[in-house]
Amino acid sequence: MIEVAVTGAGGHMGREVIEAATHRDGMAVVLAVNRTAVDPVAGHEVEAEADLPDLLDDRDPDVLVDFTLPDPSTRYVEACADAGVAAVVGTTGFSDSQSAVLADAAESVPVLRASNFARGVMALRRAIREAVEAVPDYDVELTETHHNRKRDAPSGTALTVLDDVDDARGDDGEHVHGREGEQPREDGEVGVHARRAGDVTGEHELLLAGNHEVLTLTHRAESRGVFAAGALDAADWLVGRPAGAYDFEDTI
Amino acid sequence: MIEVAVTGAGGHMGREVIEAATHRDGMAVVLAVNRTAVDPVAGHEVEAEADLPDLLDDRDPDVLVDFTLPDPSTRYVEACADAGVAAVVGTTGFSDSQSAVLADAAESVPVLRASNFARGVMALRRAIREAVEAVPDYDVELTETHHNRKRDAPSGTALTVLDDVDDARGDDGEHVHGREGEQPREDGEVGVHARRAGDVTGEHELLLAGNHEVLTLTHRAESRGVFAAGALDAADWLVGRPAGAYDFEDTI
Amino acid sequence: MIEVAVTGAGGHMGREVIEAATHRDGMAVVLAVNRTAVDPVAGHEVEAEADLPDLLDDRDPDVLVDFTLPDPSTRYVEACADAGVAAVVGTTGFSDSQSAVLADAAESVPVLRASNFARGVMALRRAIREAVEAVPDYDVELTETHHNRKRDAPSGTALTVLDDVDDARGDDGEHVHGREGEQPREDGEVGVHARRAGDVTGEHELLLAGNHEVLTLTHRAESRGVFAAGALDAADWLVGRPAGAYDFEDTI
Amino acid sequence: MIEVAVTGAGGHMGREVIEAATHRDGMAVVLAVNRTAVDPVAGHEVEAEADLPDLLDDRDPDVLVDFTLPDPSTRYVEACADAGVAAVVGTTGFSDSQSAVLADAAESVPVLRASNFARGVMALRRAIREAVEAVPDYDVELTETHHNRKRDAPSGTALTVLDDVDDARGDDGEHVHGREGEQPREDGEVGVHARRAGDVTGEHELLLAGNHEVLTLTHRAESRGVFAAGALDAADWLVGRPAGAYDFEDTI
Repeated sequence: MIEVAVTGAGGHMGREVIEAATHRDGMAVVLAVNRTAVDPVAGHEVEAEADLPDLLDDRDPDVLVDFTLPDPSTRYVEACADAGVAAVVGTTGFSDSQSAVLADAAESVPVLRASNFARGVMALRRAIREAVEAVPDYDVELTETHHNRKRDAPSGTALTVLDDVDDARGDDGEHVHGREGEQPREDGEVGVHARRAGDVTGEHELLLAGNHEVLTLTHRAESRGVFAAGALDAADWLVGRPAGAYDFEDTI
Repeated sequence: MIEVAVTGAGGHMGREVIEAATHRDGMAVVLAVNRTAVDPVAGHEVEAEADLPDLLDDRDPDVLVDFTLPDPSTRYVEACADAGVAAVVGTTGFSDSQSAVLADAAESVPVLRASNFARGVMALRRAIREAVEAVPDYDVELTETHHNRKRDAPSGTALTVLDDVDDARGDDGEHVHGREGEQPREDGEVGVHARRAGDVTGEHELLLAGNHEVLTLTHRAESRGVFAAGALDAADWLVGRPAGAYDFEDTI
Repeated sequence: MIEVAVTGAGGHMGREVIEAATHRDGMAVVLAVNRTAVDPVAGHEVEAEADLPDLLDDRDPDVLVDFTLPDPSTRYVEACADAGVAAVVGTTGFSDSQSAVLADAAESVPVLRASNFARGVMALRRAIREAVEAVPDYDVELTETHHNRKRDAPSGTALTVLDDVDDARGDDGEHVHGREGEQPREDGEVGVHARRAGDVTGEHELLLAGNHEVLTLTHRAESRGVFAAGALDAADWLVGRPAGAYDFEDTI
Repeated sequence: MIEVAVTGAGGHMGREVIEAATHRDGMAVVLAVNRTAVDPVAGHEVEAEADLPDLLDDRDPDVLVDFTLPDPSTRYVEACADAGVAAVVGTTGFSDSQSAVLADAAESVPVLRASNFARGVMALRRAIREAVEAVPDYDVELTETHHNRKRDAPSGTALTVLDDVDDARGDDGEHVHGREGEQPREDGEVGVHARRAGDVTGEHELLLAGNHEVLTLTHRAESRGVFAAGALDAADWLVGRPAGAYDFEDTI
């Protein structure tokens, strides 16, 4: 039985994770935490985040799953390092200094960070690398679409894909976020477009164009259940590993 | 026989227009003008733009077709007004003061301005108005894609569509060009995304999303021939009309 | 308080409807019926369909909501007519003789039939009519995509859209389902393509092409919750209406 | 100087190849052949196909480029084998017995067969193999779109992609061309959808779906110039090679 702690228990992803873990064989939710008081989720009392260090000692979970915001997430992972609890981090948007704190924590406990826990996104990334290597001279534009409540742009997955493109082309293209007015395209630049609308779960499209041809490679998630299931797969995989920094690709 | 003058004769659209007019029954190219010297196009000598006023008097065309840039286009239309020549203007990106000059010219001669001469774009615009009226509360995002040599953004057609959306919703949504960093979506804002890549002739997509539904309405042109043919249809329609300001929709 | 009966209580849509009605203010589920025994759904006991006539008399619901299959659905609506209960029918694929039975029932009670209860689909249909009228000579192809458990093709919504296209063009295009081998396109034919894959909730795309232009008008639902909510909107609207045949468009 | 013969000189692709070869440095068109009499193309007289064997001996081209139909194409390649002329074959839709004739010819001369001469298609194929290997259990549907004058379905490129999918999954999925009526999806089947509309140059989309995720990988050509240029690249590469059967991927 893998015992799981969940932060951001009142948030959309936190709820999904708690429900999915509750219904999963061989897994149990032993701790749910939120910044503000909320009603129980799937039968689990939700505790105040201020008490997290004590609660980790007390409940002794195997792994913590976190989909929150950079500030609280950084504190939660530090608490995991102190308590000897593995951490699966789906939060994105960390600053460099916050990332350094997470890297420190990964010297004490296993920490898996991912911007996306979908197998299909992994397939997309592999396909993108292959396509970009085949037509490295074609222009690249990335478009991502998410629901209107998402506050940051571009998405963590978009940033990961942009890194993949740079790797495949062997250089760092300048990223242009939106174009307005007189703004000619520079060689090698990558256009990045963040659409926010309705309840779209998440869509990423890479467009490659040149020589009167257009390639598009697209991934769409139709429910957050994809990500919760993948995060729990990752949690399952992470428990018992040595301390270190891992990513979702390591689990496949 | 309708006698046509073409400006921007050395540009992509100018060439298309000259070739299409040359092959069209009942039409003849009697004047081709360009800012800089270029070789003959489809057998027509290309004249210097500085001589345009004299050339209009001398050759006496029925109509001038212009796909250039705002500055020269404004001068050309003024010359048309002086010479009593109708003008079809496919140039986009005029400033308010330039638009006022065009409006003045339209008191002397018929002037048809359009950001797009494709029948399918007209169909798209009608479909968009209908859809937006049916779900006026859904979020709107506009994405347009053009070849990597296009210097301005968004496209003239995109601006026309954005006006249509405002009309259909009965208010003026704020236009957001690209999103980066912490940038929550405001109620009623319209995201505008200009992609530039390869040789894409032109693509416009309106996305409407709400209530776990997504609508997309898209138009794609596969060759500039669409626009040249439509501009000549408009020229044909415009000759003999009274002075005034017209748009492409009037011709249908 | 509107009292609702739900058939197909063990099916995907039946469950969605029961859950949505249970959580909706001013509505209560008073009867849940299924062909085979299943566990309670959202706290409601599920009864055997054989008993439906008696159960309708006994529980006296205001309206029955049905997403099942043509055979049982026809029997259920007949039972509604006998019991004086309004019926919202989301089932599709009825034969002509089954449709006649439903029409008979609509002489006794209000019966609302729809292939799709999404507002966005209504918006799509309006946009399609407008676009087809603007370019009636362009070729039309319809592509729909649904999850791999859907057994019939094309979808009910696709058939509705095909009727709309015929209406807008003023003739009945021949429908071609898939093309293989030597199969030249005939004038006026409409290609119909049913894709079945994964868990796709439902997507419909109409493509119009001619004159080097391509228009696509697309609707996508990201969860069945769209349809359950719309069916309950329709149920709410239907209660208290005179006997007769209604469709979803009447409710808007 | 590479001397090129072109068959199907009166067809769309034949014309494109002749024009492209005429304007290409280091290449010359020395023979243009068609089934029926047509006017000169790009200044080259077009000969009757019945005379091809004599003409090949007489003009002695280095390579023949053929975009026609299976019957004439098979005869042309046989004539190449007799005359010692390399052949680039873009024709598709050969029967097994016709393919055997081409294989025989490849024992005498180099024969390069390809269903598509676009670099982007090669990129698409590589991306597809990578994606299918990453999610081999996801459902696969292929949709291709071509202009309304294309007579055969599915396209040669579609068949190539379907082979790639079979290779990547390690089995032969049954291909289903269109679905109508009660037609449940079988495990491992691949839906194949051929859309024919307007002037679409060519578009291929592979859809992979499972686990509430959808991946689409798409290639679009915006002009046939892509294919003519690629066929001449292949012709250039093929001249001087030993006899044998080649494909476009060998050239990259």
